[in-house]
Amino acid sequence: MNLLLVEPDELSPEGLVTLEDVRARHLLGVLRVVPEQAVRVGVVNGALGTGRVVSVSGHAVTLACTLADVPPVPRVDLLLAVPRPKVLRRLWAQLAALGVRRILLTNAARVERNYFDTHLLEPAGFRPFLIEGLQQARDTRLPDVTVHRQFRVLVEDELDQLTGPARRLVADPSATMRVADAVRGGETDAGRVVLAVGPEGGWNAFELGLLTAHGFTAVDMGARTLRSDTACIALLALVHEALRGA
Amino acid sequence: MNLLLVEPDELSPEGLVTLEDVRARHLLGVLRVVPEQAVRVGVVNGALGTGRVVSVSGHAVTLACTLADVPPVPRVDLLLAVPRPKVLRRLWAQLAALGVRRILLTNAARVERNYFDTHLLEPAGFRPFLIEGLQQARDTRLPDVTVHRQFRVLVEDELDQLTGPARRLVADPSATMRVADAVRGGETDAGRVVLAVGPEGGWNAFELGLLTAHGFTAVDMGARTLRSDTACIALLALVHEALRGA
Repeated sequence: MNLLLVEPDELSPEGLVTLEDVRARHLLGVLRVVPEQAVRVGVVNGALGTGRVVSVSGHAVTLACTLADVPPVPRVDLLLAVPRPKVLRRLWAQLAALGVRRILLTNAARVERNYFDTHLLEPAGFRPFLIEGLQQARDTRLPDVTVHRQFRVLVEDELDQLTGPARRLVADPSATMRVADAVRGGETDAGRVVLAVGPEGGWNAFELGLLTAHGFTAVDMGARTLRSDTACIALLALVHEALRGA
Repeated sequence: MNLLLVEPDELSPEGLVTLEDVRARHLLGVLRVVPEQAVRVGVVNGALGTGRVVSVSGHAVTLACTLADVPPVPRVDLLLAVPRPKVLRRLWAQLAALGVRRILLTNAARVERNYFDTHLLEPAGFRPFLIEGLQQARDTRLPDVTVHRQFRVLVEDELDQLTGPARRLVADPSATMRVADAVRGGETDAGRVVLAVGPEGGWNAFELGLLTAHGFTAVDMGARTLRSDTACIALLALVHEALRGA
């Protein structure tokens, strides 16, 4: 944990917070904090700052927080075909750590129906992993997660509103356009990217057609077929790097 | 499984192989192969080709393999401080899928001593994961794994021999050089890269100094602190992409 995240309603108007849960155990058991010690603190979707240990009492730690800068909103939205639960479980924290503003999980022809049954698609199931990823990456911006059972409705009717103006990229092994060129090229340059990553078996022809009809540029990243989670991380790294240079 | 890998000694001189293990179960249970059906086949560290189902008998499947091209050797070697076992377990298959010629696992000041106790550092512990990653990515080139308990001996005495001429990069959050620029710049351009990724807490000053004294260029990839496995995947994606363009 490189940052201790607290919820906005945990903080008193004076900036005090008393922790008694796993975070307190981490402060006491791993960081072995003592009064007056300072730790990095952030408020979920809010500012970053410093928490000074005011008191330690049994299993509880009270911090006085001084907050300063609010981190920028990540410049990438991820449109991801729901992966199998085992992969999804591994992915949540890593997506939050890499930085995405919005995660749109969608159905697709090659998504198995039972993938939607997992509690990992419920806020109670994924939020702790997202918080873990933010604490790793020292960010406070919790990705906004929505689940879409109708791919066509999402792309045709909802995507513009959800993502706003952005370069739209879809990973496709048959493409030849490089990620960096796709991010930097084109007319729509809002400094933002929507990245679409398909299911293990790929998008089908209808889905790819619908995406390209709605402004998505097909990009590739070499000949190797990667697992969904590996592909997401690799592509997000390429997109973020291209945006840094844009 | 996008490719069925067989060991060289499983193949008869006529190119026949009979499988009865988990691979046969995959062929029968998932792919539901029937005689005359063709599946993608590769030989570990050898050629890719096609396996025609000759016979199915109980739990056994016999394939007649026609082999053609040997895939190129990956252009990247990874020098990685041993991560904690939970992370290492997740990483093996993904490293093989992304493509690395050599994985040099090393001690470092911030590597905990007990990380070396895991069976995941024994060939019997990691080889199945590497095979899984190759089968995912349709490659046959098994990464060469070595474990080094003395970082200094590795960097000073062994690295030149193990990796040969290559651009040497070390991930360092305080650097400002971009990965693509570091891969493309410089005089040593053998089209190969050695990428060094440190432990969760980073390399210490001595280690970073030793690496830079031995030709490593410090590169960064943004302000976010990533877990070892996420960082490896993200950096390998950037290095491979830069090599494609080089």
